[in-house]
Amino acid sequence: MNDATLDLTLQLIRQASVTPNDADCQQLMASRLAKLGFHIEPMRFGDVDNLWARFGSEGPVLVFAGHTDVVPTGPLDRWHSDPFAPEIRDGHLFGRGAADMKASLAAFVTATEAFLAKHPTPKGSIAFLITSDEEGPAHDGTVKVIEALKARGEKIDYCIVGEPTSAETFGDTIKNGRRGSLSGHLIVHGVQGHIAYPHLAKNPIHLLAPALAELAGTEWDQGNAYFPPTTWQVSNLHSGTGATNVIPGTAEVLFNFRFSTENTAETLKQKVHAILDAHGFEYELTWNLSGEPFLTDHGALIDAIKASVAEVTGHTPQLNTTGGTSDGRFIAKYCPEVVEFGPINKTIHKLNECVSVEDVPRLSAVYAGVLERLLA
Amino acid sequence: MNDATLDLTLQLIRQASVTPNDADCQQLMASRLAKLGFHIEPMRFGDVDNLWARFGSEGPVLVFAGHTDVVPTGPLDRWHSDPFAPEIRDGHLFGRGAADMKASLAAFVTATEAFLAKHPTPKGSIAFLITSDEEGPAHDGTVKVIEALKARGEKIDYCIVGEPTSAETFGDTIKNGRRGSLSGHLIVHGVQGHIAYPHLAKNPIHLLAPALAELAGTEWDQGNAYFPPTTWQVSNLHSGTGATNVIPGTAEVLFNFRFSTENTAETLKQKVHAILDAHGFEYELTWNLSGEPFLTDHGALIDAIKASVAEVTGHTPQLNTTGGTSDGRFIAKYCPEVVEFGPINKTIHKLNECVSVEDVPRLSAVYAGVLERLLA
Repeated sequence: MNDATLDLTLQLIRQASVTPNDADCQQLMASRLAKLGFHIEPMRFGDVDNLWARFGSEGPVLVFAGHTDVVPTGPLDRWHSDPFAPEIRDGHLFGRGAADMKASLAAFVTATEAFLAKHPTPKGSIAFLITSDEEGPAHDGTVKVIEALKARGEKIDYCIVGEPTSAETFGDTIKNGRRGSLSGHLIVHGVQGHIAYPHLAKNPIHLLAPALAELAGTEWDQGNAYFPPTTWQVSNLHSGTGATNVIPGTAEVLFNFRFSTENTAETLKQKVHAILDAHGFEYELTWNLSGEPFLTDHGALIDAIKASVAEVTGHTPQLNTTGGTSDGRFIAKYCPEVVEFGPINKTIHKLNECVSVEDVPRLSAVYAGVLERLLA
Repeated sequence: MNDATLDLTLQLIRQASVTPNDADCQQLMASRLAKLGFHIEPMRFGDVDNLWARFGSEGPVLVFAGHTDVVPTGPLDRWHSDPFAPEIRDGHLFGRGAADMKASLAAFVTATEAFLAKHPTPKGSIAFLITSDEEGPAHDGTVKVIEALKARGEKIDYCIVGEPTSAETFGDTIKNGRRGSLSGHLIVHGVQGHIAYPHLAKNPIHLLAPALAELAGTEWDQGNAYFPPTTWQVSNLHSGTGATNVIPGTAEVLFNFRFSTENTAETLKQKVHAILDAHGFEYELTWNLSGEPFLTDHGALIDAIKASVAEVTGHTPQLNTTGGTSDGRFIAKYCPEVVEFGPINKTIHKLNECVSVEDVPRLSAVYAGVLERLLA
C-alpha cells in the first residue's frame, strides 16, 4: 500500500524515541507543519522536548495532542522483527510505538495536510501539542506546555488526544474522559518481638488484616453514566524479616484508586482515614494524586468525532472512560472539550506491538473529518 | 570466688562451640564423668557429636540433658569482652553460652561429683544426654539419641533439661512442659493484571484479607492450668511485583502456632483449612510440625526439684510452659517425667550474654538436691 500516513508512521518508528528521548520525531513533524505555514515553537523543559505548533490566530483552536516517546522494547530476541525497523506482515505494521502512538502522530499531520489543501483559510486555528514524556514521569511534558499557554493567555477549545482507544475493531471506542488515579503508601506500626512471646509484641499484619478486609470490601461509589465504579487495589504488601520466629515491627502497603467523578481525591482520602482510624492502630499514610478524573460529556467535539468515526467505519462508536491515565488529564484542566481517539490498543506496551495497515489511512480520515466538521 | 562449677563453666566457654561444633566440650565433661565411673558412649550422627554417659545399671534412671553448642556471637565489636574468653565483671560471668547453657552443663557435672562423693552407691542410675545440635536444625542430636535408647530398650525415668528457665531471679521458674510449635506456608493464588483493569485480574491480597482477619481474630483455645492459650502469628507476608500499577498474581504467608495441650497439630490444621476453605479462594498450604506440646503435671521429679529450689533459694518456684521449644519435646516422648531448670535467661542469644556468678554454685546445689531426693 502506498499511503502518506503509513509512510510517515514508518519514518517515525525508525526513530528510537524511548522516553524521554524524542529522537528528532518532533523535528520531522515540525518540518511538515512548517511547510503548511504553521508557527513552530519548540518548548524544552528539563530533559524533555515538547512541540507547540499553530496554524491561524483566530478561535476556535483545535489541538492535536500526543507523544513521540515510546516504552522500552523488552527482550529483543522475543520480537519477530527489529522494533525500530518497522516491518509489514500479514496486514500489520510491526514496531515499537506503531499503535502507541506514532500512527496517530502521522495521521494528525496528513489529516491537517489534506484539510488545509481543501480549506486554506479555516474558520479557526489548528495546533499540535506534542511531548516526549508521556510514558515516563510526565512532569516536564504536556503539563508544562499547558502551564505556558495558560500563563500567556493562549486559549484552546477542542483537543483530540491520539491515544489508541479502539478495543476490538477500529473506531469502536472513543474515550471522553478518564478516571482519576490516587495512590497511597501505608505503613502500619506494630512492635517487633519473638513469635513465642506475642504478648510482648504487636503484630502489624494482625492489626492491618481487618482494616484491609474492610477496604477491599468497600463500595466506594457506583460510577455513573460515563464512569465505571471507583476501584481500590493493593499492588504490594510486605511485612516480615524473613525469619520465621520473629513478629515483624511494621507492615507496608501500596494501593491505588481508579476513581470516577462520583468521588474526589479528598473524599477518598477521608474515607480511607476513617476506616484505618476506626481500627485503632498506629500508621503513616502518604498520598500521591497522579490525576483527577475528567469528563467531556457533550459538545461540538464529541458530536464531530462520533460523526466522523461513523462515516469512516460505518459504525457508531461508544464513549467510555476506562483504562489508564493519559495526558488528557492535564489538558482537560484548561480545555473545555477533550476526547481521545486512536487505533486498536491490544498490543501496546507489549512485545511485537503492531497496528493494522488498513487502519492507518482510516485514522487520518477520521481526524480530517473532525477538522472538516469544526473548522471548514 | 573459687568454685568448681564456675571453673568448669569457664573451661567450657573457652571452647568456641558454635552449632553444630562441639569443640571438645563433651570430651571435657566425659573425662570428669569417666573418673566417677560413668560408662562413656559417644554417639555421632551426621555432623553432630552427642554424648550418652551412664553411672549404674538399676532404675530409676535420672538424666541430665543439655547441649554444648551455642548460637553465633553476632558483631564482635559490640561485645565488651571476647565472647570465648570469659570475663567476670560486676558479679557476672560474660561469654557466649554462659547462660545457655554451659553453666548448667558444669553444674550437672559438679552436682553429680558432690552427690556421688556422699552416696557412692545411689538407688538408681545417673545419666548424661548431651548434644551439640540444639540451637541448629536439631535433626541429629537429642532426637537421635532417644531413638537409639528406645531401639535398645534402655529406659529413662526422670529428665532435667538444663535450659535457662529463670526469668527475673534465680529459681523463680521451672518449666514443666513446653507448648507445641506448628508452622504453615500459605500461597494464595489470584490472577495478575493491570491495576486499571481489576475486573480482568483477581487480587490475592484482597482474597486473603478477610481470611487473615478471621485467623488473627480466632480464639483457638483458652489454655489450661499449665498452658497459656494457643497463639497464631504471621511472621512474613509478601505480595507484589514492586510495580505500583500491577495487581500481583500470588500472596505468600508464613505463620506459626504455639499451642497448648487443648489442641493438637491435627485439630489446628483442620481449623485453619476450614477457615480458608470458607473464603473460597485457591491456595496451597504446607505444614511443618516442629514440636508437639508436652507436660509433666505431677510426679516425684516435680516434687524433688521444687523442694530443692526452695531449699537453695528460700522461694517456691512457679511452674509454667511458656517460651520457645527445647529438646525437652524429644525426650518427653520417651521419658514420663521431664522438667527444665536453669539460670536467668534475660541475656541468652544476645550480645554480652552473662550469668550471675553467685547463681553458678547455687545451680549445682539445686541439681544435687534433686539427686539427693530421688536417688539417695
